[in-house]
Amino acid sequence: MMKPIQIGLLGFGTVGTGVAKLLIENSDVIQARVGTRLRLKYIADIEVEKDRGISIDPGVLTTDASMVINDPELDIVVEMIGGEGIAKDLMLKAIENGKHVVTANKALLAKHGNEIFKKAGEKSVDIAYEASVGGCMPIIKTVRESLVGNRIQSITGILNGTCNYILSKISDDGSMFEDALADAQANGYAEADPTLDVEGYDTAHKLAILTALGYGMAINYDDIYIEGISKITPLDIEFAAQFGYRIKLLAISKFKGGKAEARIHPTMIPFDNILSNVNGTLNAVTVAGDAVGEILLSGHGAGMMPTASAVISDIVDLARNLMAGISGRVPMLGCQMDHVKQLPVMPVEELSTHYYFRFSALDKPGVLSNISGILGKCDISLKSVHQKGRKTNGTVPVVMMTHRALEADVKKALKEIESLDVVGEKPVLIRIEDQNQGE
Amino acid sequence: MMKPIQIGLLGFGTVGTGVAKLLIENSDVIQARVGTRLRLKYIADIEVEKDRGISIDPGVLTTDASMVINDPELDIVVEMIGGEGIAKDLMLKAIENGKHVVTANKALLAKHGNEIFKKAGEKSVDIAYEASVGGCMPIIKTVRESLVGNRIQSITGILNGTCNYILSKISDDGSMFEDALADAQANGYAEADPTLDVEGYDTAHKLAILTALGYGMAINYDDIYIEGISKITPLDIEFAAQFGYRIKLLAISKFKGGKAEARIHPTMIPFDNILSNVNGTLNAVTVAGDAVGEILLSGHGAGMMPTASAVISDIVDLARNLMAGISGRVPMLGCQMDHVKQLPVMPVEELSTHYYFRFSALDKPGVLSNISGILGKCDISLKSVHQKGRKTNGTVPVVMMTHRALEADVKKALKEIESLDVVGEKPVLIRIEDQNQGE
Repeated sequence: MMKPIQIGLLGFGTVGTGVAKLLIENSDVIQARVGTRLRLKYIADIEVEKDRGISIDPGVLTTDASMVINDPELDIVVEMIGGEGIAKDLMLKAIENGKHVVTANKALLAKHGNEIFKKAGEKSVDIAYEASVGGCMPIIKTVRESLVGNRIQSITGILNGTCNYILSKISDDGSMFEDALADAQANGYAEADPTLDVEGYDTAHKLAILTALGYGMAINYDDIYIEGISKITPLDIEFAAQFGYRIKLLAISKFKGGKAEARIHPTMIPFDNILSNVNGTLNAVTVAGDAVGEILLSGHGAGMMPTASAVISDIVDLARNLMAGISGRVPMLGCQMDHVKQLPVMPVEELSTHYYFRFSALDKPGVLSNISGILGKCDISLKSVHQKGRKTNGTVPVVMMTHRALEADVKKALKEIESLDVVGEKPVLIRIEDQNQGE
Repeated sequence: MMKPIQIGLLGFGTVGTGVAKLLIENSDVIQARVGTRLRLKYIADIEVEKDRGISIDPGVLTTDASMVINDPELDIVVEMIGGEGIAKDLMLKAIENGKHVVTANKALLAKHGNEIFKKAGEKSVDIAYEASVGGCMPIIKTVRESLVGNRIQSITGILNGTCNYILSKISDDGSMFEDALADAQANGYAEADPTLDVEGYDTAHKLAILTALGYGMAINYDDIYIEGISKITPLDIEFAAQFGYRIKLLAISKFKGGKAEARIHPTMIPFDNILSNVNGTLNAVTVAGDAVGEILLSGHGAGMMPTASAVISDIVDLARNLMAGISGRVPMLGCQMDHVKQLPVMPVEELSTHYYFRFSALDKPGVLSNISGILGKCDISLKSVHQKGRKTNGTVPVVMMTHRALEADVKKALKEIESLDVVGEKPVLIRIEDQNQGE
């Protein structure tokens, strides 16, 4: 029998509690699979008195995180604190001390991953982070190990359950965004301050990681275009449905001709796109590669136990390496360090795609020709124009779908149209991803 | 720079060609990820003259498979021959010679996997078989590694693209089975002899592997109940749709109370089951575990390049172990050998589920009471009865949906009903999986 693997957990919140539960309650199956015991030696948290519904040996609990990461006997540090402050300090110190680290901290990796991975490489320790993207879905392992023979062409996903719940709710019962958000908060699917989720930042953290992994490049969060869902209205969701589309907050990343694209925004996708049927808090991601064509993963992207399941898979991966006396078996960013490319992400202005516009226009002669004249002048050709519904506040909604157009041209045109006296409110722009319409 | 990993390919058919293509054409990305070169030293096949559309160094091609597996320099043997004869002999000899083996041969593993894994364990070599189930979907890795912290509760999948294509075709245009099969053959989705696919054996081979992996038991192919799709009619597909169901050939396996269930049969699943929307040649599988809830994988279950992608992921896994000088890092059946349980699979007679029956009954008074009387006597209670459509050959179709019933009772009742003078043809029985109806 091998000696047990010694684990220290930093952070006894929701996911931390799930990790402790699995290590304790499923220790029999885990041990049968791994061939040794995973011993939860420490759980460090500011709050050690609170009842989390699991029975923990009191000797395991501590408020002293430093003691945990400095214990020479400890093999693996599981960082479940979150955020970029103390979590980063403790992680860097743990690495310095030669500990392998498991984390679900996408914000930290998106912003400081390159630094952390470099340090880990120097210290010959591994950073495992399956739980940072997509909860229980094994998307990191799939891209990094299962698709290792492919040139990855695109990664597209619904990576934030809060946003997906809110958009599903608006779509199901015509709620306004604010009401759908309140409902999500009441159900525990959204935080009191929902900014990180609804404005797309959390999704962008995850896409930053996947983009690096897929295309063998350093993490480049700052270049990602980010637009959230707070401006999505039931009206646009209804129009989208009439044209055969659903609106989802998509993380979209592509690699073509040596250029990487990465963007987060509400996106219209056709009903026959499998992601259009992923509703509620579910997450899903499709990955296209030159050999596989396209594969899909779907599952719970958050929640205590689904996320803990991903953390355990990381712990076991590291435990297996420890038992074999190795590290660095799978490179942290998918490629060997010296092959990781420093690549920019294409500015969104260079994006070429199909667009949906909605204008609030005065119901007067000449307005339509005015708008379409500006679009034409800016090289934007229209696929269809619809004047729908009735007048509210003296304006009617005019909906337009474009052929493929350049984002820079679209921005220029909309700015000019917005300044027209006959157009009220800010025009609505929603990008369309529709493979049926051709590249 | 590490020395290259030496690979010998046995079998230069469709998948073998795909593997060679990826090793050659994607060697740059593979090497950047693995950190060493994967050298395709040999390709052995009876036919070495045929043009497969890739340029291979003539020194690589050989008709002598023995020479390949006996080369002391060779690290990995990739068995792409298929079948249970020569493939098994060569694989066992390769193991004997201390070679690691990659295979996509589900028939061989389903029937002789226990023997092969035992031998491999004795020789400290690994058998990798991701491509044996679900083509490019990383279902083996997901169950064995990503869900390692879960007690697996069920694995349910569409694992045969041929059957899914045929059922989709019948459903789309009302084709008869024979015509849909001919169409599948014309499109290259079905073999000239389609028995292995359409009668469910291929699906059963795959489920035998997944069942073992999921529940930590030895492979037990012989106990799996197998029923194919050759008796499915457009009429039953149409009735199913009227009740909100689609018919899919499902591989179903469950583990509850220490008992394993594993069966292959046409199954009615409700429209809101995500598997009901997996159409054409696509495969998909859902896995339920106590921590993850349920996750779904979907992708191409067959074809040259998708299958080759899975083979490459196995080759890379083994290459990484070879570079680290280790083997047996992940146990072949998920559990450590001494934990693998010898478990029977529950006989289908003990199955308790919901059923759809279709009887061809004479349009005479008393027939319905006759049939329902026999069902009642056998403890089968009906949820609904429908007499649908018009008389053909003097009979009308009578469709019944049951509450939960025991398969043994159902078989007994149907036998008695079949013998009635007023019932023509053999009654049709289709099992229903519908979580909405409760357990």
